Order: sequence, then C-alpha cells, then structure tokens
Amino acid sequence: MIRGLLSVLLVLVAVAVSSSLAKPEKNIAKRGKRIPQTLSRGWGDQLVWAQTYEEALYWARAQNKPLMVIFHLEDCPHSASMKKAFAEDKDIQKVADEDFIILNLVYETTDKHLSPDGQYVPRIIFVDPSMTVRADITGRYSNRMYAYEPSDIKLLLSNMQKAKKLLKTEL
Amino acid sequence: MIRGLLSVLLVLVAVAVSSSLAKPEKNIAKRGKRIPQTLSRGWGDQLVWAQTYEEALYWARAQNKPLMVIFHLEDCPHSASMKKAFAEDKDIQKVADEDFIILNLVYETTDKHLSPDGQYVPRIIFVDPSMTVRADITGRYSNRMYAYEPSDIKLLLSNMQKAKKLLKTEL
Repeated sequence: MIRGLLSVLLVLVAVAVSSSLAKPEKNIAKRGKRIPQTLSRGWGDQLVWAQTYEEALYWARAQNKPLMVIFHLEDCPHSASMKKAFAEDKDIQKVADEDFIILNLVYETTDKHLSPDGQYVPRIIFVDPSMTVRADITGRYSNRMYAYEPSDIKLLLSNMQKAKKLLKTEL
Repeated sequence: MIRGLLSVLLVLVAVAVSSSLAKPEKNIAKRGKRIPQTLSRGWGDQLVWAQTYEEALYWARAQNKPLMVIFHLEDCPHSASMKKAFAEDKDIQKVADEDFIILNLVYETTDKHLSPDGQYVPRIIFVDPSMTVRADITGRYSNRMYAYEPSDIKLLLSNMQKAKKLLKTEL
C-alpha cells in the first residue's frame, strides 16, 4: 500500500517536473523563423558565459575566479524581472565581466550542492574557485535563501564583492 | 625518481590541456563590442539546441528521440569545415530538427561513455533515449571512429537514420 502510494507520488512529481520544464522548450520550438538561442539568454549579451557547470568549474579554477550560477526559467515572471534588473545594472555587469566566471542554467544539474535549500528559480549560487559552494552568501529571504528580487540588486552586488574574497588565496 | 618523472608528465599534460582549452575562451573574451554567443555556435541557428548533456538526456527521454552530441572546438579547422558542411546540408538540418535532440559542446563532459575511443574533435556520438551510447554508429576512420569530415556528410545522414531506429521502442 505504501509502495503503491509512493509510486503515485513519484508519477505526480515526474508529471509536474516534465510539464514545468517542457514550457521553455516548446516556446523555443515554435515553427517559423527562429531567433538563435544565446548563451546569455538576456542576462548580459556582452558577457562571456560558460555553457556547462563542468566548463564553468574548469574556468573558475584555471583563472582563480569565483563562479556565479544563475538558475532561472524562460517563462517565469520572477526570473524575467530579475534578469532585466541584472542586465541593466552597469555595476553588476562590470563586476560579472571582470571578476567572475558566469553560468546561467534553465535546467538543474545533478549536483545537489547547487540546491542547498531546494530547486527554485530565480536562484543565484556562488562557488569558490576551490570548488566550494558558498552557501554562506545568501539573499534576504529565509525560505528561499538564494533568491533575489529586482529590489535586491544592491545586495546582490555586495554579495558578489563578498564572493570575490576567496576562501583560499592559493590553490 | 619514477615519481618525479610522473609529476613532470602530469604537469605537462595539465599545461597542454589548459592551453588547448584556453584558446576558445580567449577568442571570445576579446574586448570591444562582442557578438552574443549562440548555443548553435554556427551548427544551425534555426535548430533548437540543448545547453547541457543533462538537459539533452532529459529531452531525449521525454520525447523518445535519439540524442546527437557534437564535440568541436572553435579554433579547430577540421571542426570549422565540418560545421560548415553540417549547417549547409538541408537534409541533415531537417532530420536534426525533426527527429533529434541536439547538443554541441566545446568542453568535454566527465562522462567517459561519450569518448569511447578518446577525446578528439570533431566527434559525433549518438545516444539512444534509453540512455545507451550508440558506440556501434561510427564514421569511416578506424583510428578515430566517431570523427567525420565534410566529404562524409552522406554517411553522417545515414548514421542519423540508423540512430532513429531506437534500441527499445518503449521505455
């Protein structure tokens, strides 16, 4: 009986995950002339984005720079408003460009360290070049510690400054 | 003594890896107005590309379509000529668009199954939606079994047809 209930739950979770994840792909996949997908996805076309977490970690270690991972979804209004604030903030863009390895993902990785308090969007996680997730660098919401809203953009900038102070100065 | 030699070898390998990987990033990172990076990277701007291997596997399973992973490097002339042939071939583009989940990577994943006979570029690996790497679908070069040249474009198309015949019709 419990096993049966678990199966039902698993199916429900699978359906929920697939329907929420299916949306961005469908939007992109509309017929007709498509706009080429960018790696920036609107978070800063002039920045150099890593494509994958593995690539981002490689660059963080090679260049001894902290990594900033932005989890978001194309059809999430909270992600969209945060993206606009991020892309339009000259200070954020400058610091991201000069001092960070950056990665934005619309799909969760299998690495559980990147979701210290769950998988939600938008969510911004810093990773030290020593490959340690900086779970101590948080936003202002106790229920979603790594979430930011457009009004938190100064806090995000100060968190970026915090992440620049590396855990280990030598690798 | 042997230990010392091994250390030197390891350092040499690390230097070789980092210098070969550093090139594409440096090219992109030139100052001045940058062209936004695309997920297609020139392999077909009208196609819908997955960003990561994890995302690609998810879509392959969800849509029950084979996955095609293209490993390449931006500054490799063999990759560039294969990319041109791939992007300009209408049949390839059509089949890729309709019947495949597609992913192009300039950085190796940690999954060893994606490099059955080594990590070289360009290299095209098919993965069945059952998550089995189709090591049986090969090009014409015995020393680099998953390499293709522009003159192999028809072979690639026929390999794509082969990959469409799924290992398991139901998941």
